[in-house]
Amino acid sequence: MRRTGRRPGNPDTREAILAAARSAFAEKGYDGASIRAIATSAGVDPALVHHYFGSKDKLFLATMNSPMDPLDLITEAAAGSRDEIGEKFVRAFLVIWDGPAGAAGVALLRSTVGNEWATTMFREFIITQILRRAVPKLGLDEAEGQLRVTFAASQMVGMAMARYVIKVEPLASAPIDVVVAAIGPTVQRYLTGNLPGVFDGTGAGG
Amino acid sequence: MRRTGRRPGNPDTREAILAAARSAFAEKGYDGASIRAIATSAGVDPALVHHYFGSKDKLFLATMNSPMDPLDLITEAAAGSRDEIGEKFVRAFLVIWDGPAGAAGVALLRSTVGNEWATTMFREFIITQILRRAVPKLGLDEAEGQLRVTFAASQMVGMAMARYVIKVEPLASAPIDVVVAAIGPTVQRYLTGNLPGVFDGTGAGG
Repeated sequence: MRRTGRRPGNPDTREAILAAARSAFAEKGYDGASIRAIATSAGVDPALVHHYFGSKDKLFLATMNSPMDPLDLITEAAAGSRDEIGEKFVRAFLVIWDGPAGAAGVALLRSTVGNEWATTMFREFIITQILRRAVPKLGLDEAEGQLRVTFAASQMVGMAMARYVIKVEPLASAPIDVVVAAIGPTVQRYLTGNLPGVFDGTGAGG
Repeated sequence: MRRTGRRPGNPDTREAILAAARSAFAEKGYDGASIRAIATSAGVDPALVHHYFGSKDKLFLATMNSPMDPLDLITEAAAGSRDEIGEKFVRAFLVIWDGPAGAAGVALLRSTVGNEWATTMFREFIITQILRRAVPKLGLDEAEGQLRVTFAASQMVGMAMARYVIKVEPLASAPIDVVVAAIGPTVQRYLTGNLPGVFDGTGAGG
């Protein structure tokens, strides 16, 4: 007996799962959406969701058309010396975005701020795919790590906006090495540097 | 004889000038658009454009619904000690965006990336209203200044995106003093710091 559009390997199945996942993540957020519920909604077995996408994280990244898995960048940055995290992360990011995947990144950023729903999903993306993973992976202090990573994320989002979306010169055409030399130390400082006034509750002074 | 909708003080006149200005800036860019042509297109005397908006810069800012004139922030940052430029600029920016004008800023950022036209206008905004003014006002080296300011702009855009558009915590709710303590030194370093590998053509090394 033939089951229409629901067989493994059928592109319709993949699309049906993605559509169900988009709705679920949008309605319930990343944590509230379950693979089981998404599978039910798509009319497939939960095992098929895993077969197609591997994990809830990968499924979420697929619904957002993310040009990369931030975990790969975090893992790469965390692999070497602790004082090279910033440089390595910025370089890995630029290599991906300067390449063919950059167009998907620009589309993600553009859609992100286009409407409230997309913004909410991007916030979930930053929280679940970057913050939660970066703090333990980079061995950051639990109490300080969240704020440190959001500062780093602010610089990465701004760099991507300036270089790839707004395309303001001379930053847009600057060689990767030059951008790494400028922005790598910023990310490094946010993640591991001494930040007087940030965690001691005294503010920046004046 | 009564001239409809073109009298001084008539809100229609202001709107007609703004509409003509938006078209002119979009078609010809900031430099290519002239007050005279905008006035002709709006059916008013050029003196009336100056009467309503004061200058081409102010007219341009009005067409973009900018929550502030970046020149005010640059002037404020440049007023004190040279090593406090970053802190002062970030603080002045946060005070404005944390206030009632912040909503206009968010709308500007959202519209900016929504379509190619708006992105082009925002690039013009950064170039004409920030880059051109910041380099001389802050006394930056002419050869290095453009790149330095775009790095600073990337951090400011990213901070605004993270705090006001994406609203990712804990950055979104962090006190101004805390954000200034973290991001002020970044902007300071981009503008006036020693940046090995950025201007010597050797790259970041590694």
